Amino acid sequence: MSDFSIFKKHIRQFVKISDDEFEDVLKYFRIRKVKKGRVLIRAGQPVQHTHWVRSGMLVSRYADAKGKEHIIQFAFEDCWVTDQSAFYKQDKAQFTITAIEDCELLSISFDDRERLCDDIHTMNTFFRRKANESFAKQQKRLLTYLTAEAKDRYDIVMSEYPPQVRKLSKKLMAEYLGVSRETLSRPNKIKVKSQG
Amino acid sequence: MSDFSIFKKHIRQFVKISDDEFEDVLKYFRIRKVKKGRVLIRAGQPVQHTHWVRSGMLVSRYADAKGKEHIIQFAFEDCWVTDQSAFYKQDKAQFTITAIEDCELLSISFDDRERLCDDIHTMNTFFRRKANESFAKQQKRLLTYLTAEAKDRYDIVMSEYPPQVRKLSKKLMAEYLGVSRETLSRPNKIKVKSQG
Repeated sequence: MSDFSIFKKHIRQFVKISDDEFEDVLKYFRIRKVKKGRVLIRAGQPVQHTHWVRSGMLVSRYADAKGKEHIIQFAFEDCWVTDQSAFYKQDKAQFTITAIEDCELLSISFDDRERLCDDIHTMNTFFRRKANESFAKQQKRLLTYLTAEAKDRYDIVMSEYPPQVRKLSKKLMAEYLGVSRETLSRPNKIKVKSQG
Repeated sequence: MSDFSIFKKHIRQFVKISDDEFEDVLKYFRIRKVKKGRVLIRAGQPVQHTHWVRSGMLVSRYADAKGKEHIIQFAFEDCWVTDQSAFYKQDKAQFTITAIEDCELLSISFDDRERLCDDIHTMNTFFRRKANESFAKQQKRLLTYLTAEAKDRYDIVMSEYPPQVRKLSKKLMAEYLGVSRETLSRPNKIKVKSQG
């Protein structure tokens, strides 16, 4: 199996794609390495790329009007990560996305993704079906929020992740942020160091 | 302008499509009329179709584990409506979608939508971009929920609609449900008549 076998497997969860076609797909992406603690996307900055996580872990955070911090997503191996709204609209980020482990990403720009979808019909279908799946997942979270108390929401978000990710993300976040594990149940208490 | 000019305009917000191609697209849809008070999609039933609203208005509601009702969406002219998760997964509905005005819909089945996307590349792109836009809109709502008190959420959802829809939906819901307007600010108090 090639180095990119997990990415190929990921795409094949949604569409049929030949090995040759997959090799062509890879040409539209570039490998990007992000060191632990570095910011991939910063709130207020333009968002040009979306990223598939080959290895490592990232956290996407949102600061509301009152400056309170909310954890939006942990992204780990085999996840896509970007500030989606900003990426689709080619607008400025609302989220800050930070590597909490050394990461290797497969990154594609907005224009290259459009070109890929034009050139390889299968990938147009892939991104359509992936978008539908993401909508459904997000709706599930929305429904849980509708029916949950504010104090339970962080735990609900965490419960969506596999146990090893839950454990790892708490450990890594604590390490990175220099706070106790307990504090992570109350994301509003997190003080984030600004790192470029 | 033809009868379907608003639908053509809607598609052209996302992709370039010729008049001839648009005529072909229409062949994959069928017109469906739903009388005021009738249920289009019922929780627990399979979801085969997605619908673009040509005229009229519908409401999509979700009953949580405790039986408390939540309004998920008002769909009016130029909106798409279905139970998205159930439609994409070809699963059973979680939502009940009811016409609160006489409606005319353009309906397409899951299989026909896949066929349309295969046959007309532009429509594959249309549905991909539409799905990305829907994700971004839903995320906006999720962020508002994250930062709002439970008691304010219904008002926040309503504030996303144009003023005439807000007014009309309140009036129509009250009429349909036989409750006072004030009650509509507290959706948990709504008693829904079961209508097929």
